[in-house]
Amino acid sequence: MKELEKGGFTLPGEAGYEALTLKMAEKWGADVIRDSDGTVLSDEITKAGYGIYSTICIIRDHNEWAKANPGRWQQTFLMTAPRMAVEETLTIHLMDEFFEEQFRVNDSADALRYWEVYDRTTNQKVAEADWTLEKEAGNVVIQGVVPYHTYTVSFLAYRIWEEISMYNHVTNNWDKEHLMPIDPVYPEVREYLYDWLETWCKEHEDTTVVRFTSMFYNFVWIWGSSEQNRNLYTDWGSYDFTVSPQMLDEFEKKNGYRLTAEDFVNQGKLHVTHMPPTKKQRDYMAFINRFVVDFGKELVDLVHRYGKQAYVFYDDSWVGVEPYSSLFPEFGFDGLIKCVFSGYEARLCAGAKVKTHELRLHPYLFPVGLGGAPTFSEGGDPTLDAKNYWIHIRRALLREPVDRIGLGGYLHLTENYPDFCDYIEEIAGEFRKIKAMHKEGSVYTLPCKIAVLHSWGSLRSWTLSGHFHETYMHDLIHINEALAGLPVDVTFVSFEDVKKGALSDVDVVINAGRAGTAWSGGDAWKDAELVSILRKWTAEGGIFLGVGEPSAVEGYAYYFQMADVLGIDLDTGAKVCHGRWQFETDEETRALLMPEGASVPEKAWLYLTDGKARVLEEKNGVPVFTVHDFGRGKGIYLSGFSFSNANTRMLLNLLLYAAGQELEQKYLTDNADTECAFYPESGKLVLINNSGEEAKTSVQTEKGKLEMVLEPFETKML
Amino acid sequence: MKELEKGGFTLPGEAGYEALTLKMAEKWGADVIRDSDGTVLSDEITKAGYGIYSTICIIRDHNEWAKANPGRWQQTFLMTAPRMAVEETLTIHLMDEFFEEQFRVNDSADALRYWEVYDRTTNQKVAEADWTLEKEAGNVVIQGVVPYHTYTVSFLAYRIWEEISMYNHVTNNWDKEHLMPIDPVYPEVREYLYDWLETWCKEHEDTTVVRFTSMFYNFVWIWGSSEQNRNLYTDWGSYDFTVSPQMLDEFEKKNGYRLTAEDFVNQGKLHVTHMPPTKKQRDYMAFINRFVVDFGKELVDLVHRYGKQAYVFYDDSWVGVEPYSSLFPEFGFDGLIKCVFSGYEARLCAGAKVKTHELRLHPYLFPVGLGGAPTFSEGGDPTLDAKNYWIHIRRALLREPVDRIGLGGYLHLTENYPDFCDYIEEIAGEFRKIKAMHKEGSVYTLPCKIAVLHSWGSLRSWTLSGHFHETYMHDLIHINEALAGLPVDVTFVSFEDVKKGALSDVDVVINAGRAGTAWSGGDAWKDAELVSILRKWTAEGGIFLGVGEPSAVEGYAYYFQMADVLGIDLDTGAKVCHGRWQFETDEETRALLMPEGASVPEKAWLYLTDGKARVLEEKNGVPVFTVHDFGRGKGIYLSGFSFSNANTRMLLNLLLYAAGQELEQKYLTDNADTECAFYPESGKLVLINNSGEEAKTSVQTEKGKLEMVLEPFETKML
Repeated sequence: MKELEKGGFTLPGEAGYEALTLKMAEKWGADVIRDSDGTVLSDEITKAGYGIYSTICIIRDHNEWAKANPGRWQQTFLMTAPRMAVEETLTIHLMDEFFEEQFRVNDSADALRYWEVYDRTTNQKVAEADWTLEKEAGNVVIQGVVPYHTYTVSFLAYRIWEEISMYNHVTNNWDKEHLMPIDPVYPEVREYLYDWLETWCKEHEDTTVVRFTSMFYNFVWIWGSSEQNRNLYTDWGSYDFTVSPQMLDEFEKKNGYRLTAEDFVNQGKLHVTHMPPTKKQRDYMAFINRFVVDFGKELVDLVHRYGKQAYVFYDDSWVGVEPYSSLFPEFGFDGLIKCVFSGYEARLCAGAKVKTHELRLHPYLFPVGLGGAPTFSEGGDPTLDAKNYWIHIRRALLREPVDRIGLGGYLHLTENYPDFCDYIEEIAGEFRKIKAMHKEGSVYTLPCKIAVLHSWGSLRSWTLSGHFHETYMHDLIHINEALAGLPVDVTFVSFEDVKKGALSDVDVVINAGRAGTAWSGGDAWKDAELVSILRKWTAEGGIFLGVGEPSAVEGYAYYFQMADVLGIDLDTGAKVCHGRWQFETDEETRALLMPEGASVPEKAWLYLTDGKARVLEEKNGVPVFTVHDFGRGKGIYLSGFSFSNANTRMLLNLLLYAAGQELEQKYLTDNADTECAFYPESGKLVLINNSGEEAKTSVQTEKGKLEMVLEPFETKML
Repeated sequence: MKELEKGGFTLPGEAGYEALTLKMAEKWGADVIRDSDGTVLSDEITKAGYGIYSTICIIRDHNEWAKANPGRWQQTFLMTAPRMAVEETLTIHLMDEFFEEQFRVNDSADALRYWEVYDRTTNQKVAEADWTLEKEAGNVVIQGVVPYHTYTVSFLAYRIWEEISMYNHVTNNWDKEHLMPIDPVYPEVREYLYDWLETWCKEHEDTTVVRFTSMFYNFVWIWGSSEQNRNLYTDWGSYDFTVSPQMLDEFEKKNGYRLTAEDFVNQGKLHVTHMPPTKKQRDYMAFINRFVVDFGKELVDLVHRYGKQAYVFYDDSWVGVEPYSSLFPEFGFDGLIKCVFSGYEARLCAGAKVKTHELRLHPYLFPVGLGGAPTFSEGGDPTLDAKNYWIHIRRALLREPVDRIGLGGYLHLTENYPDFCDYIEEIAGEFRKIKAMHKEGSVYTLPCKIAVLHSWGSLRSWTLSGHFHETYMHDLIHINEALAGLPVDVTFVSFEDVKKGALSDVDVVINAGRAGTAWSGGDAWKDAELVSILRKWTAEGGIFLGVGEPSAVEGYAYYFQMADVLGIDLDTGAKVCHGRWQFETDEETRALLMPEGASVPEKAWLYLTDGKARVLEEKNGVPVFTVHDFGRGKGIYLSGFSFSNANTRMLLNLLLYAAGQELEQKYLTDNADTECAFYPESGKLVLINNSGEEAKTSVQTEKGKLEMVLEPFETKML
């Protein structure tokens, strides 16, 4: 079968390495060749009969125009660190904390309308009459301050260095002009960009796919003035880099109220995705989403008019693109490309409503990777890296396929790594086989539908905000990663969705997170209607699985608003004099559910509410894993969840157990390091080893028990 | 010197063991013999020429009168556990959770005025018209409830078994009538008790000291119906056991507003001492304090009229006595007796404004002690227990003396423990010498005045709420215990005190506790005036030492309101996307301040605010011990503090270092397991070994360096 040997693979080509490019394209079965940030393709490559991806970051690389049109640059709000007054006048130098190569104060009259000064000791805004700007010095001078109160200035700043380019520049010690991002909020910028793209399309006849990287606004990435604290703030899901007086004015026109600097800087906290969004934040995000879709669609239509496809990269300048918003299909994109380290990211890509889903695999063909660790350089082992990433992606792809995979970076770096080249060939082959199996019929899934419940609902399906290594401190990303490859149905619902009946066909609700976060839900749990619906749903047979500090909010009899359901609660300190129920651990159920190596973390201050929860695990006398009958359903509590093969199996066991299903049943392996996927229509069975060790495993099938030994990382297709 | 051989010692005598009693009185140098709960003294003892203490628990042991006067019993509010409605009517059986031998529902019309039913899902009170009491069945039936909301009933219950007696009864398997506490809030009870005491005084000619145990109201101790959860709630400092319709009506008359059941039950949390007191709670405590002092003084005066002294026990029914309230001297007590395990309890007793301070040492002469561990029974080692308690008390007594010590319990249990008898003789001798040294002149103290800052201020000097083993989960009790024996001045101040100028002569402020607790301060930190005063005080040279979650409150730029001073803050989750300052550990200062064995606990989510704090210790990359210059002063942060010899020395080093004093100076030992106290006027030096191991130590004196080896637990007086 030809399709198992070639296609669905995007290769990063590189001018100067034409022979290598064509050789690797052949080896890996590439059908498309791309350029990368830092590489170009030569005619020899573009004319070789492959599809050609060209990457475009539309808002940067227009420095000449940008310089000729000052004030048409992108911006953000910045808040100075709180500065203490000791006398009755306080002078704050605006740029002390910020990287001067990234920001330039916007002190235009238009911008000054949005500047704010706050007393951070009282949280009171300082009247405009009480402060003045020293433009030359870059200072704000505040009069009549209260000694020993602290003050901040929130101001608008131009972002004079596009952040992804800045990062690549600094990381690779580039020596070229800094690229300034321009802002399509201005009609003349939109007009300029449209014309520029049209010219570009005309000039790039060989390009078959325009890969937008991505649309207009980068996720927030604020750099600091000190090398000891260069990264002041990064959030993959925050919208701060979209602001400008123009955008805010237009928001006010459309929404009927005005946003302030404080609505963005939020006492210096800004609005991280991990915290529950405010109403204003949601309004603003929807407004930006509409704006980005509207102008984005014009550009996509233009690309289509030139007979090319338009793909969008789901990272970098992706803000406002929102592939899980209802507006996304309006863009008319032909494909979505996601850079992935993890299984949940593969599902994130696979689940978006677009024709072609493509994964950009790791490691990138760069000398160094994550956190500066070597990959294609001394001390690196890119083959092992690739294996470790692939075992996460693979299990996700067995559940839900994508259409394409590919690599990025400098192809010539692979020359000294023949192992790596062989392994990518293997991955490409496995990928094509998995894709083909899905085409023959759906994968077998247990009758268990799971709804992950949090503040964002489906808009943040699978992801929290960015990659696993950026969000590892949140239990939910570990759970999402585990779920990405389990044979269950998974959906993501918001609290509003629950109130609209989203749980009617759901078997298990998972609420997992630290108190007050978007993942636990914070104040959403003050809604008696929500709580009643969930109690009723559980009493009627649902399974409520709480992890960490589920449904936690202060001000009620219990801290967990679902404590009645869970049979366990967390003491915030107000119940430190209350006695604790004695309990014995249910060793039998524990042994049933927790495979060797599974673990639940220690967490102080938990206590049983009515003494009826069965405790499966305790740490220092504190229950950390409990099962509580509630009507016909159950409340299950885990103090935390850390992704590992053993814990993933524990989660699966727990889901089966709670739903009253057999733990030992067909098409489940008996070794937590291994998993399998069964495709009933074709009768195909795939066994995978998710570890770097040889693994003995067996699986019950309709045709009897299958026993075998899998090599490290192996995929066995039967 | 006779006074070094005899006196200041209270011996528990026991009828039936007269010879033993007199022998031990001689051996231990007792000047006073007492009875205990469960023992009596015979004439042979009372006529032997010793002072005689008689213990009286005035509100119990009047069962005949109590039965003849129903409704004159003591009470409390109880709240049923939240019960979920599934239909439109909900029946709640009141006594399900509660120990029926302790409580009886008070469903009199008078009491019913104070009952309340709450919807705990909405925190709304249910109208009185919507619920009815089924008296016979002991149920409350609520109509028109919302399905899947939870409800509670708060009701008044008589306490029909005096709690200390109940505990002794259950622990010792007594088989006698349960003693009911009667309530002096009623004039007829006061009259009855006054007459009873007068008769008692007449009938007990030999008694020289009436030892009240204590006044009228026990600390809260609510028992549950299940043996798996017998202790529902205990707090040494809560006032719930003082309530009655009569008391609440009188409060309303005096304070002009009415308290409700909810003001006490507080959603089932009640008001633990460890949480910041509300205004109403403070008003009520002051009201009860006044009441207890007024009637208490009448009884003390009566005792005095019969030529006897009146001492009060600072435990059990001590509620309303408040030895650190300004009203305490009004009682006219001659002595205060504190049962002690720890050094801070010795200081608590020593610091009260009363003529005679007496410590009741542990172990008590009971077969079992703390948590049921054996003492005077097989497997017990009462001598070792006594040594381990004494090393804590001793170092406190070296700083501030008391007047008397003593034991309690059954003397005959000591017969088979000659070691124990010898060791008590040794303790009694050491105690008398220490007392005598203080009389010759004050102990040498470093020029360092420390103010421990919390919500209760001086009212909860030294103690939090009860013994160390009941409050070990709070950092502050560990700090208080360390401070109890350090050569520094210690005072306890409230936030109000700070605003009134209490820090004018203070060198170091300590604020230590979990966020939201009385020890950290909770909402007190929303007061900009307080924060400004503390910032100014630090900037002008003060040392602010924060431990755990000092000055933490939500809603501001930083979680710690003193973050500007400390240079460190805790992320509640809102700053999880904010970068962290890189730092290097200051190994030199670390080595200077942290002796071998000292430690600071791990605590996630801490971050440096401005990167300027010196980090002395980190755990998993998170700073947990920092020093931050702030003006002429310093902010110092410790993630936690656990009492040990090494950590106590670390604290002392820290105080000296912060105050700019030499760490190696005169009259400090060089081994953290040892301490010394110097009495300049008499030139006496005491060296103590606070460990069970031999300890080599040296100390610089005016006359040169002294080196010696101390035996385990040894006291060396030079």
